[in-house]
Amino acid sequence: MTAAASGAVTLTLEEAVRLTGGRTLEDVEVAYETFGTLDPDGGNAVLVCHALSGDAHVAAGPGTDGTPRPGWWEEIVGPGLAIDTTRYFVVCANVLGGCSGTTGPGSARPASGEPWGLRFPLVTVEDMVDVQARLLDALGVERLLAVVGGSMGGMQALSWASRYPERIDAVVAAATTAHLGAQAIAFNEVGRAAILADPAFAGGDYAPDAQPAEGLAIARMVGHITYLSQESMRSKFGRRLRDRDEHAFDFVSEFEVESYLAYQGRRFVERFDANTYLYMTKAMDYFDWTPPAGPLPRFLVLSFSSDWLFPTAHSREIVRTLLARGADVTFAEIDSPYGHDAFLLEPERQGALIGAFLDRTRAQRIASAERSAS
Amino acid sequence: MTAAASGAVTLTLEEAVRLTGGRTLEDVEVAYETFGTLDPDGGNAVLVCHALSGDAHVAAGPGTDGTPRPGWWEEIVGPGLAIDTTRYFVVCANVLGGCSGTTGPGSARPASGEPWGLRFPLVTVEDMVDVQARLLDALGVERLLAVVGGSMGGMQALSWASRYPERIDAVVAAATTAHLGAQAIAFNEVGRAAILADPAFAGGDYAPDAQPAEGLAIARMVGHITYLSQESMRSKFGRRLRDRDEHAFDFVSEFEVESYLAYQGRRFVERFDANTYLYMTKAMDYFDWTPPAGPLPRFLVLSFSSDWLFPTAHSREIVRTLLARGADVTFAEIDSPYGHDAFLLEPERQGALIGAFLDRTRAQRIASAERSAS
Repeated sequence: MTAAASGAVTLTLEEAVRLTGGRTLEDVEVAYETFGTLDPDGGNAVLVCHALSGDAHVAAGPGTDGTPRPGWWEEIVGPGLAIDTTRYFVVCANVLGGCSGTTGPGSARPASGEPWGLRFPLVTVEDMVDVQARLLDALGVERLLAVVGGSMGGMQALSWASRYPERIDAVVAAATTAHLGAQAIAFNEVGRAAILADPAFAGGDYAPDAQPAEGLAIARMVGHITYLSQESMRSKFGRRLRDRDEHAFDFVSEFEVESYLAYQGRRFVERFDANTYLYMTKAMDYFDWTPPAGPLPRFLVLSFSSDWLFPTAHSREIVRTLLARGADVTFAEIDSPYGHDAFLLEPERQGALIGAFLDRTRAQRIASAERSAS
Repeated sequence: MTAAASGAVTLTLEEAVRLTGGRTLEDVEVAYETFGTLDPDGGNAVLVCHALSGDAHVAAGPGTDGTPRPGWWEEIVGPGLAIDTTRYFVVCANVLGGCSGTTGPGSARPASGEPWGLRFPLVTVEDMVDVQARLLDALGVERLLAVVGGSMGGMQALSWASRYPERIDAVVAAATTAHLGAQAIAFNEVGRAAILADPAFAGGDYAPDAQPAEGLAIARMVGHITYLSQESMRSKFGRRLRDRDEHAFDFVSEFEVESYLAYQGRRFVERFDANTYLYMTKAMDYFDWTPPAGPLPRFLVLSFSSDWLFPTAHSREIVRTLLARGADVTFAEIDSPYGHDAFLLEPERQGALIGAFLDRTRAQRIASAERSAS
């Protein structure tokens, strides 16, 4: 276990990881952060799972380089917040295949020392979850009060219920789906096509400082449109022009929405890896979840009214299959104009629901422990 | 006027065309087709306007090369159909900036004889309409019973009401909008970015047989997703794999929706021009229509329930502004699962409404002519 300057720590798994696709990965490194303290009874651990472009830095504080930077869910995870780090021991790890410290296509291949590139095996959401379970083993966390995530993080939370139902009390799955529909797969494929078409991609063997920047930026632009709602784009940008009163009659970015997207694309290239983008979108495309046989944890399923990437109907489908299995399910659709990104942009209402759900889960566990003790 | 082997005819406008952006185009060529016969009183002329990727070949029959090929609206325009070519004289012309015979960025620049490329001036929907009016002048068509179009063709129809209200009795605007919202502009910008990022684009100066194929294909893939509804994609493809039972765990097209989109992208490159794609999408982005002052023609506004590119709300907005102006407006939302493409895929219900509307318009014109004669 090697500690970075502060923030994320990197741990190397002792045993090889056998992947869904049949291949095996050795010396898998996992970058993770923890917040709060594990109770002596180990009953207060919460695993938070990040989405496509997230990382281990879920709460505020210094990142791996020691520079304070925002956590991607810093209004939900922290002292006194919904996932209260004075009460819960929170773990968040960069996913397998990621580009923020955990082994992925940008990592050195043990055999050659060269980056894996596209020789890295395809990973599934289940593989990500298996790596998280190994990490928790190493951290001495036997049980989880809850696994919590939004979008691809929600898929991991659902997957935990299938892979390790005996280790978790509860699942919080926000803005997610049991499986992508054809349209979402299509958008992912467009993003991948843009990356693969960029000559700088070089079959995945680009240098770390010579990314296929244009392809990755276009992929991000497409993705970004699907994360916002028509309504939020209209109210945020409308048809306003940027820094001009009249049309340019030229192929420059002139609408504000164009400049915004181009900016989002450029910024993404600075912090994300094109190969990882391919692996993450493929893992999402493959994800196809049904509740497992046997006992189920409690579920909190949250959707957002204007999310058209993983619409409320997808959450309702999860809820229906769970109810048919007799599971304990709480479902809420949060009314929000922010589209899919609402799981990042609606901390208050989402946090209140998550906080109360964790409270109830914790109370239930304590009551259950007291019953078995008496 | 030079006639092609059959089908489209190309006419060169005698006078230069002054564009909205301030520049002037000389020797503009217009490729058009006509169907049916103009009545001696000139009262049965209908102009049909095509959408982004359309051309002059609206009805069935041999194309410019003499080979029979489908017309893009061949179930609506033809003998005995809704726009009955045994009763109406139908004109359809490739738009200014197009790549199917009318002057556009692929045309030879008069000064040098080389293709214009990006030196071609940006054109607006209004410029397209002005060129159509010149074409009709040359054909001796003084008045139009109706201007009919869907999507970008609907924008042209609306624009006719502003530019030449005295020349038209009616407008049929299907699956269109008075102005694109931020999301639609964003999708167009992604398509343009994919074309511009393709090294084969070469600043617009690629050879006709060396298009930026990958960029244009990606642009088409994005566009295609926006033309279909989530519902139609789900029922057409779902999560089905193509020619395999299990995942490949490789970056190949494996879902049917991926193969379909890739095919659509490739096919588009064979028949369309990347520069024209840039000009057409920009013309749509610029379009921003309000009804003109003065007398208005009659309107038929049609929307499709699952069209999320130009949703019913956009048609309702057109209807509201027209009603506020006291216009004679018929509006219908056609219930269809086919998304924006429904204007091409729902000939029966759409045709019935258009046919009846043209009948009423024609009857009104005849009654009005009889009144003024008596």
